Amino acid sequence: MEIDSKNQEKTGLVSCVCGSIRACLRKLKEKAVIFAKKTNKVGRDDPRRIVHSTKVGLALTIVSLLYYFRPLYDGFGQSGMWAILTVVVVFEFTVGGTLCKCLNRGFATFTAGALGIGAEHFASLCGEKGKPIILGLSVFFLAATSTFIRFFPHIKRRYDYGVLIFILTFSLVTVSGYRVEQIFELAHQRISTILIGAATCMIISIFLYPVWAGKDLHNLVASNIEKLANFLEGFGGENSFVLSQDDNSFLQDYTSVLNTKATEESLANLAWWEPSHGGFRFSHPWKQYLEIGALVRECACQLEALSSCNKSQPKAATDIQRKIRKPCKRMSSEAGKALKEIASAIKAMRHPSSSTVETHVRNSKSAVDELTSVLETLSSSAKPPADHGIMEITQAIAIASILVEIIKCVERISESVFELSKQARFNKNCSTTLSPSTTTTPPEKTHILHHGKVKLVNHVDGGHVVILVRDTTHEHPPPPVTTGE
Amino acid sequence: MEIDSKNQEKTGLVSCVCGSIRACLRKLKEKAVIFAKKTNKVGRDDPRRIVHSTKVGLALTIVSLLYYFRPLYDGFGQSGMWAILTVVVVFEFTVGGTLCKCLNRGFATFTAGALGIGAEHFASLCGEKGKPIILGLSVFFLAATSTFIRFFPHIKRRYDYGVLIFILTFSLVTVSGYRVEQIFELAHQRISTILIGAATCMIISIFLYPVWAGKDLHNLVASNIEKLANFLEGFGGENSFVLSQDDNSFLQDYTSVLNTKATEESLANLAWWEPSHGGFRFSHPWKQYLEIGALVRECACQLEALSSCNKSQPKAATDIQRKIRKPCKRMSSEAGKALKEIASAIKAMRHPSSSTVETHVRNSKSAVDELTSVLETLSSSAKPPADHGIMEITQAIAIASILVEIIKCVERISESVFELSKQARFNKNCSTTLSPSTTTTPPEKTHILHHGKVKLVNHVDGGHVVILVRDTTHEHPPPPVTTGE
Repeated sequence: MEIDSKNQEKTGLVSCVCGSIRACLRKLKEKAVIFAKKTNKVGRDDPRRIVHSTKVGLALTIVSLLYYFRPLYDGFGQSGMWAILTVVVVFEFTVGGTLCKCLNRGFATFTAGALGIGAEHFASLCGEKGKPIILGLSVFFLAATSTFIRFFPHIKRRYDYGVLIFILTFSLVTVSGYRVEQIFELAHQRISTILIGAATCMIISIFLYPVWAGKDLHNLVASNIEKLANFLEGFGGENSFVLSQDDNSFLQDYTSVLNTKATEESLANLAWWEPSHGGFRFSHPWKQYLEIGALVRECACQLEALSSCNKSQPKAATDIQRKIRKPCKRMSSEAGKALKEIASAIKAMRHPSSSTVETHVRNSKSAVDELTSVLETLSSSAKPPADHGIMEITQAIAIASILVEIIKCVERISESVFELSKQARFNKNCSTTLSPSTTTTPPEKTHILHHGKVKLVNHVDGGHVVILVRDTTHEHPPPPVTTGE
Repeated sequence: MEIDSKNQEKTGLVSCVCGSIRACLRKLKEKAVIFAKKTNKVGRDDPRRIVHSTKVGLALTIVSLLYYFRPLYDGFGQSGMWAILTVVVVFEFTVGGTLCKCLNRGFATFTAGALGIGAEHFASLCGEKGKPIILGLSVFFLAATSTFIRFFPHIKRRYDYGVLIFILTFSLVTVSGYRVEQIFELAHQRISTILIGAATCMIISIFLYPVWAGKDLHNLVASNIEKLANFLEGFGGENSFVLSQDDNSFLQDYTSVLNTKATEESLANLAWWEPSHGGFRFSHPWKQYLEIGALVRECACQLEALSSCNKSQPKAATDIQRKIRKPCKRMSSEAGKALKEIASAIKAMRHPSSSTVETHVRNSKSAVDELTSVLETLSSSAKPPADHGIMEITQAIAIASILVEIIKCVERISESVFELSKQARFNKNCSTTLSPSTTTTPPEKTHILHHGKVKLVNHVDGGHVVILVRDTTHEHPPPPVTTGE
């Protein structure tokens, strides 16, 4: 019996241990699966990341040849280490980033080295006792002022890394110069190895599957405009005004636009360093992209207000609500189409078809007029029945007002893009195939002129004759005067 | 005559040279003045920058003692350079930033060094010919995978610098190990000098006028809420609805809120590294700040829509417009007061006075009810005269709708701040002096309960008796039913 119970204990222990090992393995497996999935996602999101990683590995291997090959090692000695350090620190994802760091590093090393040798020489004149004091003070003041200069906005934007390397090199040269006698040879070795490292990075970065910050910025701005267009087209589509909070993909698509300011600015700063490449000249108007981006974010803000107004709107609609919604839908979808044309033009690096954009903007504006006349009819008609009170159309009116602001915003975006297209000399002679949607409103129907000073136009809409008194110098068109019903 | 003309030429030349020198000097002086002004501005904007610069200079000078003092130099030799390098690269503006870099650097150097020595040992087993190949391959694969891992979002957020230093150290150790025989001594020297550099930075950063990222984040969120409050209070004030585009200071104040996402996130990441300091524990709920920040930005978006709606509103108001604006102003100013109490509570690190906040929110909601009844009266009254059409109150209605959304947003912000205050264990026992504004609406007048399921309330407003059927499970209250007039 005793042996039995002992055996039982043993098997119990063994099975317990086995169980815990199995549990451990299971957890490990789960973690490995999660990690693999993450890795897969990171790689799939942007396959250029895999290429970049390979490029860094390659650059490092090439530079470490400085150590492995006896003739090169004899030339550079331990300074070969600086080439490795340079490659690791300087190789960035985009060409602009790599160039920015390489040029900053090279220039800063050179000036700081020269200044350091000068300080060293000057300190030597002060005797053996005074030298460390002079050197210590110079390091202190130079480090303090340079660190302060890093807070200047325009320095921070472009030369932050250069100032850092300047402090580093100056300190190293003056301080190590105190002991090392052959300071010139040391400086020569270091500068040449740093140049080798930087050159390796630049060549690999530019000629081996380059990632251009400028192109990324260009595509980012275009896709942001497209996201707005998608929202507006969707909002103006069949299923709009029924969007609930569950339509997350729809919502998040444009909300991501709100948070791209930092990315856009850093890309524009990096693009400034890039040489001309595929359609982008050296002096490409990168600043204009930031301007467009600001307008796009402003528009996205309006969409945010629109969608939150829409969420609190009753889903079931009365007849009047439906009447108001009809022009709203057209306003939205036409504005969306205008943005879509703009986005596709940017993507193709061609001048946006001004006729297409203007037609859509005009259509959306005529929808505004339609809305105005619907509202006017409403208010001028006899006392509405109880179920058609103001309360029920409040949200619809709010949505309409926001849409009017959005159309203004779309106009400003299109102006800004035309300006970009002019500055960047985008291709003008291209056969723009008008999308079928543009033909839904034939040109003879959109006879309302929007760019006159004061115009009297007879506008026949659903049996009502409306005279529009327009003065486009005002931001908001005055209400039309209904003359007959 | 000839001599005269020559003299004239000479004096002409001299005066010309003098003039150009003077012009040069004038330009130089102008540039110097601009630079001085800029420096002054950068320093005045945040005087901690001057302190930080001095701290960096001090740390560098202390570390360079490793070179100047003979006994220390004999111990560390050329490795003292690594201490300087560490200080320059690691010393950041905030304590969190410095700690993040120090710990990352220390840990990465240690693991990469150990791994490098292991790789070195393993490669030695493969013979003189195989060794460089094995080492080259290991550098390639390690650099490539590590670079790829840097793209993982959570690695990028906290350990980006560590991975960089890992690649650097591994490459340096394996590659230089190929030549240097005394690899262990070298590793020991480097690690100890890096530790000295890192320790110097950490001590100076924490104990000499520390700049805490956590405190900055805390203040940033509070001041952002305050900016919204200022806008809303101003909008609800006497001169509101007359705001033109010229009131730039007013506008830019809240627009800056829209662009703080990147700053908030980086501060939260850095704050995660900081030890407990003045009210902030080690496990302070930094994530909650990001949540509040997102809600605040959402609210700022609504303000953007509000202000652009307001811009296109006619300035002169009819009687009905004035009637609608009255409750709108109260909605706005009460919402602003609620936010102000929340902001001042965060700043003082105390639990927001729930009675104050709730009173203001309740007041703003009762203003919504007032608005509802105004609109209801409007729609139920007999046909309005021609000058009181819907068209004229469209913008007012839109503004009212947006304000309703803003009040919802303010409620969510206050909930989120209460949650933060609970998680962070803010001080609860504090004498909140109610601002005089809260007493304008005596409690006996705000007898409408907002948190019941379905309530029937008689609400006397300007002679009209309104029965409000409230069901707060709906997001938007149904319109009240007017029973008599």
